[in-house]
Order: sequence, then C-alpha cells, then structure tokens
Amino acid sequence: MDKLILHEDARSGNCYKIRLTAALLGLPLERKNYDIMNGETRTPEFLAEVNANGRIPVLQVGDRFLPESNAACWYLAEGSPLIPAGRWDQADMLRWMFWEQYNHEPNIATLRFWLYFVGEANLTDAQRLQLPAKRAAGEDALELMDEHLEGREWFVGSGPTLADVSLYAYTHVCEAGGFRLDDHPNVCAWLRRAAALPGFVPMG
Amino acid sequence: MDKLILHEDARSGNCYKIRLTAALLGLPLERKNYDIMNGETRTPEFLAEVNANGRIPVLQVGDRFLPESNAACWYLAEGSPLIPAGRWDQADMLRWMFWEQYNHEPNIATLRFWLYFVGEANLTDAQRLQLPAKRAAGEDALELMDEHLEGREWFVGSGPTLADVSLYAYTHVCEAGGFRLDDHPNVCAWLRRAAALPGFVPMG
Repeated sequence: MDKLILHEDARSGNCYKIRLTAALLGLPLERKNYDIMNGETRTPEFLAEVNANGRIPVLQVGDRFLPESNAACWYLAEGSPLIPAGRWDQADMLRWMFWEQYNHEPNIATLRFWLYFVGEANLTDAQRLQLPAKRAAGEDALELMDEHLEGREWFVGSGPTLADVSLYAYTHVCEAGGFRLDDHPNVCAWLRRAAALPGFVPMG
Repeated sequence: MDKLILHEDARSGNCYKIRLTAALLGLPLERKNYDIMNGETRTPEFLAEVNANGRIPVLQVGDRFLPESNAACWYLAEGSPLIPAGRWDQADMLRWMFWEQYNHEPNIATLRFWLYFVGEANLTDAQRLQLPAKRAAGEDALELMDEHLEGREWFVGSGPTLADVSLYAYTHVCEAGGFRLDDHPNVCAWLRRAAALPGFVPMG
C-alpha cells in the first residue's frame, strides 16, 4: 500500500476514527497535526493541496487525498474483517456510519466542541439557542444505541466492524459535552469491549 | 432478491435517492407513503416495526428494515456499475456520500424544508437564527461541487455512481430553498446528464 499520512487535529473524534482503524489493522500511519481552533485548515495551502472543504481529517494515500472520516476508514479496512462480508451486513454497517454522521456527531460531538473547547460563554446566539435541541437529539442517539445493544456485543453481526469504530470515537468522550454515560449501561459495556480489542489505541 | 418496499414521503429527496437507484437498476420497488408533516413516522407502530429513529426513508427487504438513504442505495446497487470497482474509487464515492449527509443535506435540504414546506413565518427563533449560516454553508457546498465538476462528467471515475444519485436528489430542487442553480454552470450541466440517464425517474 502507498504511504499513509493522516492530516488531523488529535482532539477530533473524526480523526481518531481513522487512527483507531489503522491501529486495529496494524497499518503504519504518519500523523500531521493542525490546530483547527487557529484556522490551520483554512489556509490557501491547505485548501489547494489537502482539502478544498477546509476540514480535517484527510487521509493521504501516496499523493491522493481522501476527506471524510468514515470514507477513510472504509479505504483502510477494505478486505479486512472490520468490513463484514455479505450484502446485508455491509449495508447495515454503512447505515450506522451514516447515522453517526447525521444523528450522532452533529449533536454529541458538537456539544463537546461548543461546551468543552469553545466554552458556553463564547457561543453565538444562534449556537446557544440550539443547545436544547442538540441536547435532546444527543440523548435520543445514546438511547437508540443502548436499545440496539441490548443482547448484542457489536452493532452489526457478531464481531467488531467500522460501525463500532465510528460510533466509539465521540461516544466515549460524550461526557465532555454534558451527557451521562452511566444512564446507558449497554453503551458502557460496549465501550469497554471496544477498548479491550487487540491493537486498540486511546484518543489523543 | 426479496421483495423491496420503500417506506417514504415522496417529497423527501432522501427517499427519492432510493427510488432513483432502483429505477436506474431496473429493480421493482413497492412504495408506502407517510406524511412526515403529520407525524406519521412517529407513531408507536412505526417506531416499533419500521424504524426506532422515527425517520424515513426505510428500505424494507423481505422482513428486514434498512434506514439511512445512502445505505439503502448501497444495498440496492451492490454488484452493479453504480458502485465502482477498485478500492480508491469506492472510498472516494463514499466520501461524497458522507459529505452529502454532513455538508450538503443539513443546509440545502433543510432550507428547502424550512422555507418551502414549513414556511419562514412558522420557524422557531433557533431555526431563524441558523438561516444565514445554513445559507452560506449551502452556497459553499454548491460551489465545491461546481469546482469538482470542472472538466469532469461525474463525481467519481468515468461513469455515474451512487455519489451522483445521492447528490442529485437535493441539488436539483435547491431553488426551493432559495439557492440559484444558474450560478453553478458545471452543476447545471451535470444535472442535465443525470436526468438523461436510461431508466431515470423524476422526483415525486
């Protein structure tokens, strides 16, 4: 495989997903850090060379650049057990990964970013007014995960897949956004199983 | 293949993606309509039987249920040319589909929903304060698409893929949310190419 470089901010759960996928698969991954709080992913150089969307993570594969965390995880895991065989299970795994980006990340990761990194006092009015809806939607997301995990060890099929990697990233640090993991015991047990996987690396 | 039923609201671009994928592939698809404006996807029956997340679309395959529009498209298109062969192109296609759900749909589809279906006078303060940011992010999304399509016929590789289907759905009706397609000539040309594909069906 071509040399792999992760363009990241180590505080970002989206970046961590890619690093965790590579670690679980034993793939070497070089890391290049950017400070998103200081606009380092909005410079003309970054926009021209790495990602016109001005966002990290971006997985660099040789001289090609792949944005979007879950797509980068897919690239790394292709042909491995982290992508289940079978048409249904693959689609069902992608279902959880799309759900993560639409229903989980914009609520659970955003509250962590706003409350833990930006600080409530520094939010705009538009952001402050969104807090109750994002709180409720984040709680709903954790509850949906907890219900799905009742009697299940992993999100899809019988072993860990990218659905688990993707959902682990922001779930395990959700308390920085004011959510309570103890309210969701099946989620807690699943987080412990994930952290015990061979090759697991912590965030950071 | 098991019998396919699409649980949908025909006004939703997310639902249309699945119907368009099935049409392009010549797959028969039964349709079951719900009125999301009247809470028909939040009834106890729907939550228990179709989707605990209370959302459409859901693709029913025999007696199994698959939420998330892009995952359902993947299920239908597996093994067809709408999913390109090759590790890079598959990941790059998913990159655009995740981008669609994170950067495109929450801005372009949401403004259409708020302004065309709900009506600006009926928005909450929290929604109204988000209008400028969603307008700017939607414009950025259309501009990114226009730049990417410069010199390209399709989003990934040399033929139409699910990335095109996914992005077509809400782009072609973006003017209902106040966006101007004429500002993005490459997007306009691409929309015409998509609408000329064999098997194409219009929204609705």
